[in-house]
Amino acid sequence: MSKIPVAVLGATGNVGQRFVSLLQDHPTFEIAALTSSERKVGGHLKDFWRLEDVPLAPDVASIELQPLDVSVLRKHDIVAAFSALPAEIAVDVETNAAQSGVRIFSNASAHRMDADVPLLLPEVNPNHLPLVERQPSFREGGFVVTNPNCSITGLALPLKPLVDALDLTDVHVATYQALSGAGYPGVPSLDITANVVPFIESEEEKMRREAKKILGSMSDGILPSPIDVWANCARVAVRDGHLEAVSIPLKDDVPPREIARLLSSFRGEPHVQQLPTAPKQPVIVRAESNRPQPLLDLMAGEPARARGMAGTVGRIRVVGRVVRFFVLSHNTIRGGAGGSLLNAELAHRRGYLD
Amino acid sequence: MSKIPVAVLGATGNVGQRFVSLLQDHPTFEIAALTSSERKVGGHLKDFWRLEDVPLAPDVASIELQPLDVSVLRKHDIVAAFSALPAEIAVDVETNAAQSGVRIFSNASAHRMDADVPLLLPEVNPNHLPLVERQPSFREGGFVVTNPNCSITGLALPLKPLVDALDLTDVHVATYQALSGAGYPGVPSLDITANVVPFIESEEEKMRREAKKILGSMSDGILPSPIDVWANCARVAVRDGHLEAVSIPLKDDVPPREIARLLSSFRGEPHVQQLPTAPKQPVIVRAESNRPQPLLDLMAGEPARARGMAGTVGRIRVVGRVVRFFVLSHNTIRGGAGGSLLNAELAHRRGYLD
Amino acid sequence: MSKIPVAVLGATGNVGQRFVSLLQDHPTFEIAALTSSERKVGGHLKDFWRLEDVPLAPDVASIELQPLDVSVLRKHDIVAAFSALPAEIAVDVETNAAQSGVRIFSNASAHRMDADVPLLLPEVNPNHLPLVERQPSFREGGFVVTNPNCSITGLALPLKPLVDALDLTDVHVATYQALSGAGYPGVPSLDITANVVPFIESEEEKMRREAKKILGSMSDGILPSPIDVWANCARVAVRDGHLEAVSIPLKDDVPPREIARLLSSFRGEPHVQQLPTAPKQPVIVRAESNRPQPLLDLMAGEPARARGMAGTVGRIRVVGRVVRFFVLSHNTIRGGAGGSLLNAELAHRRGYLD
Amino acid sequence: MSKIPVAVLGATGNVGQRFVSLLQDHPTFEIAALTSSERKVGGHLKDFWRLEDVPLAPDVASIELQPLDVSVLRKHDIVAAFSALPAEIAVDVETNAAQSGVRIFSNASAHRMDADVPLLLPEVNPNHLPLVERQPSFREGGFVVTNPNCSITGLALPLKPLVDALDLTDVHVATYQALSGAGYPGVPSLDITANVVPFIESEEEKMRREAKKILGSMSDGILPSPIDVWANCARVAVRDGHLEAVSIPLKDDVPPREIARLLSSFRGEPHVQQLPTAPKQPVIVRAESNRPQPLLDLMAGEPARARGMAGTVGRIRVVGRVVRFFVLSHNTIRGGAGGSLLNAELAHRRGYLD
Repeated sequence: MSKIPVAVLGATGNVGQRFVSLLQDHPTFEIAALTSSERKVGGHLKDFWRLEDVPLAPDVASIELQPLDVSVLRKHDIVAAFSALPAEIAVDVETNAAQSGVRIFSNASAHRMDADVPLLLPEVNPNHLPLVERQPSFREGGFVVTNPNCSITGLALPLKPLVDALDLTDVHVATYQALSGAGYPGVPSLDITANVVPFIESEEEKMRREAKKILGSMSDGILPSPIDVWANCARVAVRDGHLEAVSIPLKDDVPPREIARLLSSFRGEPHVQQLPTAPKQPVIVRAESNRPQPLLDLMAGEPARARGMAGTVGRIRVVGRVVRFFVLSHNTIRGGAGGSLLNAELAHRRGYLD
Repeated sequence: MSKIPVAVLGATGNVGQRFVSLLQDHPTFEIAALTSSERKVGGHLKDFWRLEDVPLAPDVASIELQPLDVSVLRKHDIVAAFSALPAEIAVDVETNAAQSGVRIFSNASAHRMDADVPLLLPEVNPNHLPLVERQPSFREGGFVVTNPNCSITGLALPLKPLVDALDLTDVHVATYQALSGAGYPGVPSLDITANVVPFIESEEEKMRREAKKILGSMSDGILPSPIDVWANCARVAVRDGHLEAVSIPLKDDVPPREIARLLSSFRGEPHVQQLPTAPKQPVIVRAESNRPQPLLDLMAGEPARARGMAGTVGRIRVVGRVVRFFVLSHNTIRGGAGGSLLNAELAHRRGYLD
Repeated sequence: MSKIPVAVLGATGNVGQRFVSLLQDHPTFEIAALTSSERKVGGHLKDFWRLEDVPLAPDVASIELQPLDVSVLRKHDIVAAFSALPAEIAVDVETNAAQSGVRIFSNASAHRMDADVPLLLPEVNPNHLPLVERQPSFREGGFVVTNPNCSITGLALPLKPLVDALDLTDVHVATYQALSGAGYPGVPSLDITANVVPFIESEEEKMRREAKKILGSMSDGILPSPIDVWANCARVAVRDGHLEAVSIPLKDDVPPREIARLLSSFRGEPHVQQLPTAPKQPVIVRAESNRPQPLLDLMAGEPARARGMAGTVGRIRVVGRVVRFFVLSHNTIRGGAGGSLLNAELAHRRGYLD
Repeated sequence: MSKIPVAVLGATGNVGQRFVSLLQDHPTFEIAALTSSERKVGGHLKDFWRLEDVPLAPDVASIELQPLDVSVLRKHDIVAAFSALPAEIAVDVETNAAQSGVRIFSNASAHRMDADVPLLLPEVNPNHLPLVERQPSFREGGFVVTNPNCSITGLALPLKPLVDALDLTDVHVATYQALSGAGYPGVPSLDITANVVPFIESEEEKMRREAKKILGSMSDGILPSPIDVWANCARVAVRDGHLEAVSIPLKDDVPPREIARLLSSFRGEPHVQQLPTAPKQPVIVRAESNRPQPLLDLMAGEPARARGMAGTVGRIRVVGRVVRFFVLSHNTIRGGAGGSLLNAELAHRRGYLD
């Protein structure tokens, strides 16, 4: 059976390159087109490649970068497109592509809060996927599915089993976010070398409102969750991997061992767990005194295809009805390209790509 | 009038060097002796100097390092000694020196929680100072005064006016702590380069228990404050300056402007504000969207002698009865040597060095 | 006597800010105008200030940024202007300003190799200054004087006494250049964090050709020096300070002590050494095994006004007729704004600003 | 056919861990014993694992760390041992082990300059290997083979074809060396964060004398090469990978294209090129303007088993009979564990392990 032809929109950025790296030898999808901004059109991805840990496959390296145009998608019979576009461009492009029948799996923030667009984390809210049927473009076969902001993705994975099992409403979190999250060229080195920058545009608001949607219940539309995520977001001089320090008041006494058990045993629904890019264990709990660390836990996740797809939690402490822990996740894999890829795998499994 | 002869105990470490830098041209105190660990005795501080931003005065550079011994303190008629000793050494040395009549101003954690030892932040709890009169050594003229842990120092400054004016009990905080806080050699570069380490031994416990003492009320001993500081502490690749992300549930609606006003207008008692090393404004509030930053706000504080003694708060936000902000303070000045020096100035002002 | 009114052209960049910091309390010059690129005109320097180690004086902070225009210079009776402009803009702007009678002291590379423009390092080639009299604009009172590229500046200081005393022609050098040398935003953090970039556009060529001019002899024009500087230039994750590793074949046996003596005793001519910003000792030689280091030796130079104006040499070794050493200099002070300021002081001393 | 049982001596250090990572699935060798310093004996390697990019195989993770003792080697029938010991321990231990019949492949500097010990780089001087037959222990079947210092390894690879083809004697080189080269804990973070340290104990001397031996000719013993390597060595805040800036005076005119051709076409002897860990192309030449970079070129080398075994050269320039280029190599793979492993493969191929 032949693979499904897909495109990567905005293939030369940090998340775009991650999409390409994950799609290079994917069992279901195959890259048929790569688009870029005007001035790179006609060039090749290898001239912009910055993923030091992943070799670019020769057949992908030789694909010519094309303009961001619905006609390009048509020419290559693109069934689904992965969008790593900037939000301001994504607004129209994604809608237009969907209306021409393409299934869009987007990392852009543009449509995340649209009422009929799923903000999807397959282990957390797979039941939100059918929202796509309410999109006007669905009649043409196209739709938009988004993955959440990288910081809330890493937090939502451990939050889901805790919210389900315990009585809690407020989540205080401070982030230590990696440079790759700001794109390229991104953060100037003079701003961040031997420094911390305690501000990331709109990040804290995104974390709060996206958490309410992801954890919201699905009825006639999504009913926002009562959970409030109170975030303080900062950039640190780390290349990849968002670390988050979490502090949650509980209404009952819960031993740390029980928190660890809830997190380690958390799994998505069986059909989610079988997706190619799904990590066997979405949240890994480490017992060491000084983990998770970006350098050491960045690529957590098994099997090989799911490296970087698991969150890692460590330093679980409960004192006086407040639970504290750290969680780390790969911001451009789990919190970006890998997240959207898993969304596409779920959509495929559920028949939405047929 | 001649200056008061003082010693620095443990003069070659990060905090010890800060003590020396602040005492070099102090109006009240003058360095009469410097002690070090055995293997450096006989050497000179200039061979160990690592404070790139402060030149070592020639007369101090030529003082010979001496062993840590009460007889050394006696020989130099030391009235007060600043201790930058490791906790395990400080336990006995500080007690012995106090019993021989020396006033100890210590950055070590050894005696911070002793019932009769003030854990002093002059702008916050100057009324705790008379606790020293209960120390057994006080009859000999000696006593021990401690300054709090560097991380809680930076937090306690903005917390004091908030606790006094508002109804709050829980303070969630995550720290971004500098390398100098771990001493020298301290953190191996392979552990922290392009990484974050989410663990600092005992730091989170210290923050909670020291906050309860600092903010506690003084009657017959100190009644611990009901404030609970829930900390997640991490080390980042910054040279100096602890940044802290704070999130505090309030029981009432308070506009951010009011928070800013409370913080900016916070002052110590008049006799505290006149001390040589006291910053004119203990908490500086910045309006920029991306401050405070370690590199830019590290040395906040006026006049010149108080550089590094002010905390800087920024990004004050209040949403849904939760106030969030960042605060930065210099960990080895305000949170170390400068803190103890200010304590000594207060003790001097109150007649405890006579 | 009133001070001479000067302007800083391109005041918001890294070197522009250094110009301002050095001119803030200068004994001879006073800032009368600051120019910036179009989009910052009307703003104030304080909104762009990034020099964490230097407070901006209130009177300078309140100067409105003005457009880069000869009429602006005229309006403020500008006698001399310090140029921190990008080369492509400097080409015309500097020439025009000179033709309107302004003395330009430029850090831009645009006119450095012009036959009638001095490439001036006061301790090294003060005799090149009269070249300005050959410039067409000199009749109007205006002229252009340039300071050399930051990397060759740091090298030329120790090279001068060696070239004068010893028989040598080839200088092999590798650089470890700071981030501030690339301007702001400059090097993306993703390129340089935990990395080295072995390329700086045109830097190696500039080092070779500028050395030939600086060390050239002055007769009827400048006769290029036979010295060949063979450079390998790289960027490292250091904020300020260019370190250079030097290896020079000698034709004779010279003990390292003699090299150290030549360097330490090097001085400019007496009238140069008395300039306000001239360091008492242009090249400081350190005996420690691990110096110079950017963090520790960056601000070398006395008196206070000359901090950052001295080069620091260390690790002098001579084996088999090859001398090796490291040299460090502050790239935006000695190798930028401070260098041009010293040039202006020399011109003033010689009567060229009357 | 069963694999050859080998031991790693000093398995918990940076190079020790690299030995283990490379031996984990080796076609010829299998790990039978791991030794460590006293205080780690009885523990397991997984508790010390710091190679973030390599998972530790479960069967290796469960091997108990044993004391450094000849009886341990005997008990496990160790044929060959890979030594990552500190030099001062290696002196005696390696000699004793060899005398008891074990073949030692050592990364330690202790025996590198011994007249009867090969300092082996298989692509460069495979003919030095028979020196082992002159070692007193050879009668017992044991011997010591060493790999060169990491910095000279990376330089010797491109130097060999140049020395063979061109007329040159002096090689000026400056290094940008990674943190992992200093072992663990190694360089304190306060020394190197946002800094460069221009000193690495004995490194420059090692580079000169080891180059003379590696490139020396073999007759009745090794006749040192006339090549002089003049090094300036510095440590930078890079995790892995030594970059070197090279400048070589030539006696003839040679176009850069010819230099590139000599380097790219350089190969070891056929039987060397077929060894499992030998890179297909020992020196890779890159044409980009800003390569090699540690982050991007660290793992150069094909096939998969030879990742990190190739040197990468870039920025070849020839001006006025001086050739300049940068070269990068992995200091703990090619310049450490991988180098010794390749030596062992060569010894095996030549029958020295029978």
